[in-house]
Amino acid sequence: MTAREPLQVGRAEVRCDAAAKTAGIEPYAADLYPENLLWAGVVRAGIASGRLLSVATEAALAVSGVYKVLTAADVSGPNRHGIIHRDTPVLVNERVRHAGDAVALVLAESRTALRQAIARVRVEIEPLPAVFDPEAALTEGAPLLHEGHAGNILLAAEIRTGEADRALSRCEVVVAGEFSTPMQAHIYLETENGVARLEKDGTLTMTVSSQSPFRDRFEVGTALGIPYDRLHIVAPCLGGGFGGKDGATVQCLLALAALHAEGRPVKMHWEREESMVAGYKRHPCRLRYRLGADRDGTLIALHCSLLYDTGAYAHLGGEVMELGMEHAGGPYRIPHVLIEGRCVYTNNPVAGAMRAFGVCQVAFAMESMMDLLAQELGMDPLELRLRNALVEGDDNCAGLRLTTSTGMVGCLERLREHPLWQERQAWKAQAPPQTRRGLGLAAVFNAAGYGGKVRDAAIAKVELNAEGKIVVHNAVTDMGQGNGSAFVQMAGHILSQDAGQMELRQPDTRTAYPSGSASAGRTTYTFGNALIKACEELRARLINRAGLLLFLDDDRDLRLVPGKVIHPPTGRQVEFAQLAAFMPQEDRVCISQFVAPVCEQPPDTAKGFFIGFPHVIFAYGAHLARIEVDLLTGLIRVCDYVAVTDGGTVLNPTMLDQQIQGGVAQGIGYALMEEVERHEGRVHSDSLATYLIPTAVDLPDIHSCRLEGAEATGPFGLKGVGEVAMNGPLPAVANAVDQACGIRLHQAPLTPERVLLALEEKA
Amino acid sequence: MTAREPLQVGRAEVRCDAAAKTAGIEPYAADLYPENLLWAGVVRAGIASGRLLSVATEAALAVSGVYKVLTAADVSGPNRHGIIHRDTPVLVNERVRHAGDAVALVLAESRTALRQAIARVRVEIEPLPAVFDPEAALTEGAPLLHEGHAGNILLAAEIRTGEADRALSRCEVVVAGEFSTPMQAHIYLETENGVARLEKDGTLTMTVSSQSPFRDRFEVGTALGIPYDRLHIVAPCLGGGFGGKDGATVQCLLALAALHAEGRPVKMHWEREESMVAGYKRHPCRLRYRLGADRDGTLIALHCSLLYDTGAYAHLGGEVMELGMEHAGGPYRIPHVLIEGRCVYTNNPVAGAMRAFGVCQVAFAMESMMDLLAQELGMDPLELRLRNALVEGDDNCAGLRLTTSTGMVGCLERLREHPLWQERQAWKAQAPPQTRRGLGLAAVFNAAGYGGKVRDAAIAKVELNAEGKIVVHNAVTDMGQGNGSAFVQMAGHILSQDAGQMELRQPDTRTAYPSGSASAGRTTYTFGNALIKACEELRARLINRAGLLLFLDDDRDLRLVPGKVIHPPTGRQVEFAQLAAFMPQEDRVCISQFVAPVCEQPPDTAKGFFIGFPHVIFAYGAHLARIEVDLLTGLIRVCDYVAVTDGGTVLNPTMLDQQIQGGVAQGIGYALMEEVERHEGRVHSDSLATYLIPTAVDLPDIHSCRLEGAEATGPFGLKGVGEVAMNGPLPAVANAVDQACGIRLHQAPLTPERVLLALEEKA
Repeated sequence: MTAREPLQVGRAEVRCDAAAKTAGIEPYAADLYPENLLWAGVVRAGIASGRLLSVATEAALAVSGVYKVLTAADVSGPNRHGIIHRDTPVLVNERVRHAGDAVALVLAESRTALRQAIARVRVEIEPLPAVFDPEAALTEGAPLLHEGHAGNILLAAEIRTGEADRALSRCEVVVAGEFSTPMQAHIYLETENGVARLEKDGTLTMTVSSQSPFRDRFEVGTALGIPYDRLHIVAPCLGGGFGGKDGATVQCLLALAALHAEGRPVKMHWEREESMVAGYKRHPCRLRYRLGADRDGTLIALHCSLLYDTGAYAHLGGEVMELGMEHAGGPYRIPHVLIEGRCVYTNNPVAGAMRAFGVCQVAFAMESMMDLLAQELGMDPLELRLRNALVEGDDNCAGLRLTTSTGMVGCLERLREHPLWQERQAWKAQAPPQTRRGLGLAAVFNAAGYGGKVRDAAIAKVELNAEGKIVVHNAVTDMGQGNGSAFVQMAGHILSQDAGQMELRQPDTRTAYPSGSASAGRTTYTFGNALIKACEELRARLINRAGLLLFLDDDRDLRLVPGKVIHPPTGRQVEFAQLAAFMPQEDRVCISQFVAPVCEQPPDTAKGFFIGFPHVIFAYGAHLARIEVDLLTGLIRVCDYVAVTDGGTVLNPTMLDQQIQGGVAQGIGYALMEEVERHEGRVHSDSLATYLIPTAVDLPDIHSCRLEGAEATGPFGLKGVGEVAMNGPLPAVANAVDQACGIRLHQAPLTPERVLLALEEKA
Repeated sequence: MTAREPLQVGRAEVRCDAAAKTAGIEPYAADLYPENLLWAGVVRAGIASGRLLSVATEAALAVSGVYKVLTAADVSGPNRHGIIHRDTPVLVNERVRHAGDAVALVLAESRTALRQAIARVRVEIEPLPAVFDPEAALTEGAPLLHEGHAGNILLAAEIRTGEADRALSRCEVVVAGEFSTPMQAHIYLETENGVARLEKDGTLTMTVSSQSPFRDRFEVGTALGIPYDRLHIVAPCLGGGFGGKDGATVQCLLALAALHAEGRPVKMHWEREESMVAGYKRHPCRLRYRLGADRDGTLIALHCSLLYDTGAYAHLGGEVMELGMEHAGGPYRIPHVLIEGRCVYTNNPVAGAMRAFGVCQVAFAMESMMDLLAQELGMDPLELRLRNALVEGDDNCAGLRLTTSTGMVGCLERLREHPLWQERQAWKAQAPPQTRRGLGLAAVFNAAGYGGKVRDAAIAKVELNAEGKIVVHNAVTDMGQGNGSAFVQMAGHILSQDAGQMELRQPDTRTAYPSGSASAGRTTYTFGNALIKACEELRARLINRAGLLLFLDDDRDLRLVPGKVIHPPTGRQVEFAQLAAFMPQEDRVCISQFVAPVCEQPPDTAKGFFIGFPHVIFAYGAHLARIEVDLLTGLIRVCDYVAVTDGGTVLNPTMLDQQIQGGVAQGIGYALMEEVERHEGRVHSDSLATYLIPTAVDLPDIHSCRLEGAEATGPFGLKGVGEVAMNGPLPAVANAVDQACGIRLHQAPLTPERVLLALEEKA
């Protein structure tokens, strides 16, 4: 038998879920079909604005196999959910604000009966004036979606450092631009779903595809008047999340169904169409930028205005915009900054969290501006970025003094040495006929953690189970990014265990502890820090208990190896199974907590902000896209892509590369093709035939380069990198297109139509 | 309502058991009378050496109310117990080695029936030659008690540094003396007792007056062939222990009785007589000393031979002698040392652990020698001690380099400033008629902890219980010294809780964790260090969970106060009861461990030692006795007593003073009156009418002075002081008597008869 090799931090360990996922046996919520289940489905408004007059259920109830039809009248409790603002009805009781609003809930014995019944619920809605354009929503006389929100403004805020406008008026060079970004959908493989059941003891148990099982208890509990400790929520691995499962999707509806199912299990699973209509989306955004510099390329001033369309309900709209504002000036030193932001309600689908949470919108604008400025100055765009790149000790554009690891310069320098950058002229010159080649850069960054005034904390639990295996209780959902596997690797490293000795449990509000959502690049950072402490305590206990069983004078020579504690000087050992038999359950469980650091002296630069400002830890990246533009079709092809990333110390290089490649892929979709198309607030591109995402053939080789440098506060020096890569592709490709064809595209996605139009305009 | 005041380390907090003990409601094992109990009692050999021929039980069984009579034939398992050497029969099967050997075990419905039946068990023993004098035991031809122990030697060992004999031959001044010390009894208020029951699930549960419940499981289990995890042992507060309950007394017998009681509870309670006959005793010791110095008083060489009488079985005899040897040179620098020790078997009662564990014997000899030397040199005895007193960095007489706090000089200096020392001449001169007055000194020290090659470790557990109280699970018996109260004080200090918010549980092998015995001055040191870590973790959790419930961004402003966590900036708070409801049981329990430091580089000075050498931490003390000798009766009266103690940082001044006063009182009994008198191995002084201990009227004011100085490895800087004070009174009084009357007493106790004899000899 070969020696079992302990897992090690820093090494490209195989993900612990690789085999199960490859074999298709990893259990997702969507795989659950409890015996005797009832199907639950939603009747949606179908029009974007109106007054609900009546819901006639007779025809639906007449369908064979229909169990119940519920309306707002069946909801006890406030009937409102939402993470920050509790403004979203579980079932509409009066006002319809977007076409995906839920009006009634049908329970049926089969999916067929469910579909038939949903079609036969007669909903009478009196149409009301609607508004779909965020600028129109701001105008006087526009229909108001929510009381107390004049001008439909969910949040208006600003960040101000120095005197931007006065400084701009004195700058030697000023460039300006207006940009817009699309509504993007998350397009997880596993759409929103879950099962729930009201247990005999009054507990409502739910297994759901959720990024935030612990918070869900409060959201569901508040909406339906259930004490949070009567809600037991389990979140298995997700088939994708990307922010779209952060907050209640099916949860409140499922709970409501379960409350009326007399103890029978209830299953709800949105099909792709429903996911597109009713799921959360990325905020479309309009951005106006003016950027000024000295002739030598030193950035002096920035003034920008951002308009985020949050759709019918608040969800995380204000926070998404705030993060965008915090990043609006890019990873640069700019002494004079004025960033104005407004997030407005419209009758569009609800926007919320999505990977890079408001940041990829501003990255498009700011990085386009940087290339415009470089052109204006006749400077190399990489050198312009290097000259202004943030270093530790600088104040960033939000006025925050940077005290944590800041690898922006390192990323740019690494990119400068990359062969694809070095050989750029030769490659460009070899463009095929009717084709133009170009290279585009983007310098990106992305905050990690919830930011100021939000508790960013985790409680980790690790145990030696009764059989002598090490069980890591993950409490932050693994949506596919592999945080669970990272936790096993960390625990294995500290406890010197191999994968076979470890077991990973996914979040369960009964057996794990509140640790926040899987989001904001915080997952491995925050939970990992707590986990390290728990594992160190477990290691101390295992060593100590083994020393006790071996009657050792001193524990210093004891070592953990896979499955046992050994004492090399004497050759004696204690198997974990022996330890497990010796240690009572309470002794086999170690629990530790971590609260992420917040800014000790928040700058006085932000006005109108609610929570989430400022952040203290940022991942950085320098991206390069090599593209070809087909001059006949307008099609952009991304040929190669380089992403240099500063994510602190790398726990697992393969997993970091996968995160970066995934982010770049999703960013290329955002850059080239993805847009949720609507008409009168109704989603038209509601299938994967009409909403295109890049497939393997649409994607280039994505070269991930890792700039390692420990972040002192991070677990083993790590920073989160789940989001940063999303920010690069759109501006890098837009900059490359400009370099290739001399056209500056201001509206994303950069579709062939838009390219052709710009080429025509230029011609 | 007045604010509740948190407990504080360093303050003279009232002992948490004060009220219960004063009111007589603290439950001791002896207070337990379970329903339907059977009484168990022992038939003892009654002669000191012989061969057991038969045990006739018929007459005993005929007594009304007798349930069973058990003999060795009823013992399954090896029928041998012992802490280090398993040489003591639970019930004699062949050889009788001392008069207290247990021969049969009687179970009866009442204590009366028990007594009658014990008297009627007919034991036939063929007498064998016996040996009662330890020197005689060494001679060729002496009866051998145990196979494999030629010369009846349990352990022969030596400590050697430099070349003692050669150096002595060259010393300017050499003094010599021979000393002997008595067998002392512990005389706890609560004699040995316990109750036991065989539960339906096969568990043997025992509540017993024991200093070592966790070790008892192994001792009982090994003797009777019961797996240790089937033994559940609870040790409530003891009515005294002093070492006499360290190791099995009633335990094996009780367990044997319970195994044969068909599930009925069994109670055994030794009366005073049985305790005197069968309980462990302090080793009588004979000591020969030669001590050499320069004319200026610098100690040069010591050669001493120690002979410890361990009685019929090993128990802790070897270890007791080893500790005596380690302390034989006193708290002084002596470059050339040869200490020879022999511990021998005799047919006397079994000696074992007793407060100061072998050390008070050598302290008598060494401190007498120091005064002899001072006389010889014409030096002030205090100055002589100061000149030679150990300081940190010195090698002590066992060759150990001192790396921990060493307050010997400080103690002597403090004593020198004391009014009783300053006014010594005047006081002496005012002796009443027929009376002589004298002052005597002793410089003492006592190791803490088990010493090398023995695991000295503890595992502490503290929890927030379901009602929101802080429960400290003491795992090292509180024999009355108040360690439990010290633990509550420490936990209260760390967790900022008042006494009313705290609850103390006494050791229970099911709910607490193996933490060694209550002995060796290690209790508060070792367990306290573990407890600090557990309390700090609980504090971290309470703060964190409160922060979670209050949705606080950052936990830094949260503070613990009695019964709750408060957030002064907002005035919000979380009651412990709320936290308890929120936190699952596993989360409310914190467990931490500590392994006491051992000597990193043990000196190569000790030969023949088994375990327990060397120690690294020592408490120090300087004692002064003011005495009067009645020239007509020979009676010594101790008029005043000063004890300066270096016990590191003082946790609770009152409790330290009480420990010191208790030790001095027991030491005065040892000095003046206590001796277990025997004839042919049978104890004659088997009652408190014949074995006298000092009462309040026999004791002087005992002034405790605290020399505070933190020991870096100790909990809050503490060192254990349970034993050190025991070492002073005998030599201090002997030195005072010499000063008063010019007689040097070499044999303890210093009875009136011996004083008169010495006065006569002198005259």
